Amino acid sequence: MSSREDVLEYHSEKKGKIKVVGKTRLETDRDLELAYTPGVAEPVKEISENPENVYKYTSKGELVAIVSDGSSVLGMGESGPEASIPVMEGKSLLMCKMADLSGFPLILDETKTDEIISTVERLHPMFGFIMLEDIASPKCFRVEDELKDRLEIPVFHDDQHGAAVASLAALNNALDLVEKSLKDVEIVVIGAGAAGIGTAQLLLDAGAEDIKVVDLPGIISPDMDELNWKQKEIAELTNPEGMEGSLEDALEGADVMIGLATGGIVSKKMVESMAEDPIVFALANPDPEIHPEKAKDAGAKVVATGRSDFPNQVNNSIVFPGIAQGSLNCFAKDINTEMKLKAAERIADMVEDPRPEKVIPSSLDKEVVEEVAEAVMEGAHETGVCRIH
Amino acid sequence: MSSREDVLEYHSEKKGKIKVVGKTRLETDRDLELAYTPGVAEPVKEISENPENVYKYTSKGELVAIVSDGSSVLGMGESGPEASIPVMEGKSLLMCKMADLSGFPLILDETKTDEIISTVERLHPMFGFIMLEDIASPKCFRVEDELKDRLEIPVFHDDQHGAAVASLAALNNALDLVEKSLKDVEIVVIGAGAAGIGTAQLLLDAGAEDIKVVDLPGIISPDMDELNWKQKEIAELTNPEGMEGSLEDALEGADVMIGLATGGIVSKKMVESMAEDPIVFALANPDPEIHPEKAKDAGAKVVATGRSDFPNQVNNSIVFPGIAQGSLNCFAKDINTEMKLKAAERIADMVEDPRPEKVIPSSLDKEVVEEVAEAVMEGAHETGVCRIH
Repeated sequence: MSSREDVLEYHSEKKGKIKVVGKTRLETDRDLELAYTPGVAEPVKEISENPENVYKYTSKGELVAIVSDGSSVLGMGESGPEASIPVMEGKSLLMCKMADLSGFPLILDETKTDEIISTVERLHPMFGFIMLEDIASPKCFRVEDELKDRLEIPVFHDDQHGAAVASLAALNNALDLVEKSLKDVEIVVIGAGAAGIGTAQLLLDAGAEDIKVVDLPGIISPDMDELNWKQKEIAELTNPEGMEGSLEDALEGADVMIGLATGGIVSKKMVESMAEDPIVFALANPDPEIHPEKAKDAGAKVVATGRSDFPNQVNNSIVFPGIAQGSLNCFAKDINTEMKLKAAERIADMVEDPRPEKVIPSSLDKEVVEEVAEAVMEGAHETGVCRIH
Repeated sequence: MSSREDVLEYHSEKKGKIKVVGKTRLETDRDLELAYTPGVAEPVKEISENPENVYKYTSKGELVAIVSDGSSVLGMGESGPEASIPVMEGKSLLMCKMADLSGFPLILDETKTDEIISTVERLHPMFGFIMLEDIASPKCFRVEDELKDRLEIPVFHDDQHGAAVASLAALNNALDLVEKSLKDVEIVVIGAGAAGIGTAQLLLDAGAEDIKVVDLPGIISPDMDELNWKQKEIAELTNPEGMEGSLEDALEGADVMIGLATGGIVSKKMVESMAEDPIVFALANPDPEIHPEKAKDAGAKVVATGRSDFPNQVNNSIVFPGIAQGSLNCFAKDINTEMKLKAAERIADMVEDPRPEKVIPSSLDKEVVEEVAEAVMEGAHETGVCRIH
């Protein structure tokens, strides 16, 4: 791990991590005439006459808004808008370096649901893709649903779907290794926040039939008073009979555990109680639900974490740049389940020779990003959400 | 002039004019640890503990928001948010190329005054400087006033103050050439929109004592029913006695005309009626209030326009990059009259040997931008609005 000093030096050396640059020439008076007055009136007219021309004459088709209200930064809870800037610049940096896109942070000094929605709606003209980040659950779900309804560009809540796509990709390869199928396995998702709910939903969409979602009250079920509306919704889908039980109960006999909750909450004994050849994804950051060595000792066949210093890092940074790139390659109007499933499948396929220590590609593999973009664009074409055909 | 095809080619070749790039390394897993998780938690903590650290660890101190609602683009009236993007990208391009700053367009799909204000207020955390552009008059005044009150960063309405600073700079040199002083001359400002009112106000601040502002109803005076609140305010300052008269009446005997209105409205005869050695700035774009050759023929001693294809281009592009750079060099909390006056003075000084065909520097002279930045920072220090001392 890098020291605190290294990190602060990395951030202060150039004051932050991103900048805006010109991509056209501006040296002569003629350049100024072309770029600014009087020339600029021409593209203005072209766009006035046909709004779709905005993708032709402006940077909209490369611009990704990275939107956060700072209400749930790095699992640190509410740390305020200014403090969330380094995280969002980090996402921008990944977007710019991993994909050929311009990620720009929109940091909101406002945490109320309706105001977040209206602000993003007002700002959408400049952007071809909206990525929501680190917005507290459950308002993140309302914000995403509402913006998807209102806007004709993709809206993607990274905390939900980034985690979901990465987990599904790694799980596909892990299941192959233990010769089990998604349809048949018993899966326990720990954590009913954005990542847990997003992952449970995508696993259902991919064909999983037996999922238990566990949070503080145990296995969540539709009639629990302490659940928010979105947790109830996923409980309806995963546990309509209202089964009750603790985390310990849930893991007993399970084939797969996907932890998206809090460090250290899973014991060795719990892993030992799982089915044969268990798969353990302990993805909480920085401390996994169970240390990977301990999970191995308890018999786990495939172990993954969210960290780069252990094998199998399941991280949304392998997902969102390709998702955005693929959507923007065809100026998509939406991002849908099919596109996410295709992304997960392609990420899994990019591991040439899966083995227990290698079920997911490296987070910084640009070839993966390109392949994910390709797959996402295929999904967009098949579902008819492309502007370009 | 460039052809329509040249302009559209310039805009479509790379799809727009700006992009976001990373300014730090992101190649190895260690880079990812530093830039993103888990390292990024360190600057987050530093900023949580002391909000001023945001200037140290993020790009805020280089980021300029270029805000428009598209309600008054290029004098074309309301053309909608998408159509205003090429103009705002042009401003961004100038900001990035002329100053060492990151200009990013915030294009609003919303034209109501209160909503514009609240949106910019919500988005301010990421930006060190707010530039307002092409927002219709008179709401632009309310938007600027209110944001200046609410935010602890500079808010600068370019249409007002950019035009004002450039005009004052050119006028200073022109007056030297005809051996008259600002205090003594009779000035006619044509146009009581953002640029006209901003210019009249700055001329008053600089010491001018005799200004007539003329709009459609003639010389504006405080009791005219057809004026908006801001026009009444400037009429109170420039014409408290309620003098009446036409544009023709106003120009008769005047020393200086500054046109910020509409092409072709000033005749040769009107210029002939002005005082000895008249100064004629016909700044309407693309068509000046009077063609510069015609003004010369009528006896004008110094003539300026807003265009690059005649001598003396008075254009805000020589102003705003330096204003923003100077403000951000000291992380200013505000931009005030003193800073604008210093900028105008320095721009005038940058013309080494003023002559009638050269009263203002070239629009693309980076040395001017640096000097303006220097002068603005001096003004900021003197008036105590710097965060850095």
